Amino acid sequence: MAETRESTVTFGVLDETSEHESRVALTPDIVTRLRKAGVSCVIERGAGLAAHYTDDDYTKVGARVLSADEVIDNADALGFVDRPSADVLARLRPRTWVIGMLGSFTDTAYIDALDHAGLIGVGMEKLPRQLSSAQSMDEMTSQNSVMGYKAALLAADAYGSFFPMMTTAAGTIRPAKVLILGAGIAGLQAIGTARRLGAVVTAYDVRPASRGEVESLGAKFLDLGLDFSQGQGEGGYARALSADEQAAQQAAVDEKAAGFDVIITTAKVPGRKPPVLLTKAGVDGLKRGAVIVDCAASDLGGNVEGSVIGKQVTDGGVTIIGAPYLASEVSNTAANLLARNVADVLVHFIRDGKLTVQTGDELDDALIVAGRSVTATQA
Amino acid sequence: MAETRESTVTFGVLDETSEHESRVALTPDIVTRLRKAGVSCVIERGAGLAAHYTDDDYTKVGARVLSADEVIDNADALGFVDRPSADVLARLRPRTWVIGMLGSFTDTAYIDALDHAGLIGVGMEKLPRQLSSAQSMDEMTSQNSVMGYKAALLAADAYGSFFPMMTTAAGTIRPAKVLILGAGIAGLQAIGTARRLGAVVTAYDVRPASRGEVESLGAKFLDLGLDFSQGQGEGGYARALSADEQAAQQAAVDEKAAGFDVIITTAKVPGRKPPVLLTKAGVDGLKRGAVIVDCAASDLGGNVEGSVIGKQVTDGGVTIIGAPYLASEVSNTAANLLARNVADVLVHFIRDGKLTVQTGDELDDALIVAGRSVTATQA
Repeated sequence: MAETRESTVTFGVLDETSEHESRVALTPDIVTRLRKAGVSCVIERGAGLAAHYTDDDYTKVGARVLSADEVIDNADALGFVDRPSADVLARLRPRTWVIGMLGSFTDTAYIDALDHAGLIGVGMEKLPRQLSSAQSMDEMTSQNSVMGYKAALLAADAYGSFFPMMTTAAGTIRPAKVLILGAGIAGLQAIGTARRLGAVVTAYDVRPASRGEVESLGAKFLDLGLDFSQGQGEGGYARALSADEQAAQQAAVDEKAAGFDVIITTAKVPGRKPPVLLTKAGVDGLKRGAVIVDCAASDLGGNVEGSVIGKQVTDGGVTIIGAPYLASEVSNTAANLLARNVADVLVHFIRDGKLTVQTGDELDDALIVAGRSVTATQA
Repeated sequence: MAETRESTVTFGVLDETSEHESRVALTPDIVTRLRKAGVSCVIERGAGLAAHYTDDDYTKVGARVLSADEVIDNADALGFVDRPSADVLARLRPRTWVIGMLGSFTDTAYIDALDHAGLIGVGMEKLPRQLSSAQSMDEMTSQNSVMGYKAALLAADAYGSFFPMMTTAAGTIRPAKVLILGAGIAGLQAIGTARRLGAVVTAYDVRPASRGEVESLGAKFLDLGLDFSQGQGEGGYARALSADEQAAQQAAVDEKAAGFDVIITTAKVPGRKPPVLLTKAGVDGLKRGAVIVDCAASDLGGNVEGSVIGKQVTDGGVTIIGAPYLASEVSNTAANLLARNVADVLVHFIRDGKLTVQTGDELDDALIVAGRSVTATQA
């Protein structure tokens, strides 16, 4: 084991658990990892409980378990699953580093608030994912992966028949036909999990590159007979389609969807209203007993027209589950991966035992979304 | 397709759906099958809805959809998922055949009531399962198989981490360690499903013969270092252990259980209070975040001390799910298999176009639990 360096930076994590959030941005294994990198850890009481870690679990590995105020007072940097609320922001000390999904692509007012408060904002959403040095910091990938796994499990659990083919003395049960719409990280993980369970899986994505990825997992690629070349957007995400393209895609998907028992949609476009992939006509065309899991469901709508957060059953007997919180529901795995992502970002910024920003460093330039003026004096 | 024979027997099914029952003893495919065997089908309105079959689905294949009273008036034989309540029994016409899980092993008062009402009782629980001609009639096997599949899915869904091992840029997630207690039909199906999902599976059963079955599915057999030779009871089920044997088994299981993340118990002994396999001490020894699914949970207790029907979380952070209705929750598959089981029993008793009992026939002798005096005049 590497010798623990003298601690110069203190990292803090607050309790973010709520009805929909069971994750925590620090886990005991990561406390151990951070201490080896010369980072002391402080965590709010009970913050890990929903992810199955007690205060004792943190204390045992050398973290200090404190009140929220004490965490804020002691921490040089705070890590978040999501981002601090305005209330929490108002309590932070100037020059505190705030690491989280800060929403810098869409919420400039929030970023301005960080700036005005003299906070240093590290936006995990801005990670240059294509850099190999950034891969262990990629919260979007780790959490979407968990989401895709859970989406397939949730669909299997809600479906009133078997996923695998089963030959019994009382007849043969045919395998479920599953369609995955959106074959990014979440979609690929959903494909893998549905196939593990024995379903026959087909997938679709607007990015032409995804065909090979889908087929390499043993799933079929759904051919809509449409050409959205250059479907790949910035940072490896799907770009938004034009209104005409969307309508053509919807009509084609609606028609093809009728042949499937289970549909899982995963097409979130960061910071935007999710694209509607399946319209009401598509839903109405499904068989009684069909199940839809819409991972993009939100107050702004989802990938499925009419989907809401929670479960509903249509008059036609189709179950639609709007499930935006799936990563949080696999709280232990999700927290472990997320905590590693956040910790690796934190450690990246520690140079000569201090949190510093180095202009010209590709990661630094991308990730620092607020507080440049503050950090300029530190560098 | 075989020519449809002239119909001489009418088979009826009532709506049994309730909060805990979504199955139905007749599905459209089975209507088609029965019509080919010369059987007309009548079914109560809405009886198939929870299994995703509409009245139209039945009408299309030639069944008549009627009120409950009309079904009772028209049917020569009625098929049940479970068995008719006393209220329903009181409404049946004498000489009606009643096919279901009649509980003849334990509830002699119920069987007497059938007899006194002049009904012919066909107890599915009495099926001689070892006969190859009986395999397509084996409701216990088909429904336990569905139960085992669902138990593994339910456990995976409730568990806050991944079942499969997953190697990611942010670290490796180890696979879940799953222990299956009771390796009958349900246990074997749970093993298969948990393994499909990537878990590392260990199983235990009191029957020495089960070691080979468990290992052939790629799971480890849990060696308790105890000898319960002659553990096999009548009809292929586990026999009940003596009090001393049970205590020794519990202590050994409690100790071994601590190393597992997920425990699924499936040891129902037909008609008796289920054996306690895991005591409170065993539950308390489990890790925070561990999940138990107790398929034997009932008002009489379950395989896990303190388990109740529904979900509870212990002070130690262990989730215990008492889940006695799992087959019903996979309503479509379960109904299709069950309907085939019941239909094949019905057809067995049709000889020369009439429902008859043939003394000396191995199936007849086993299955007819009430109404022998009535059938004697028919044979």
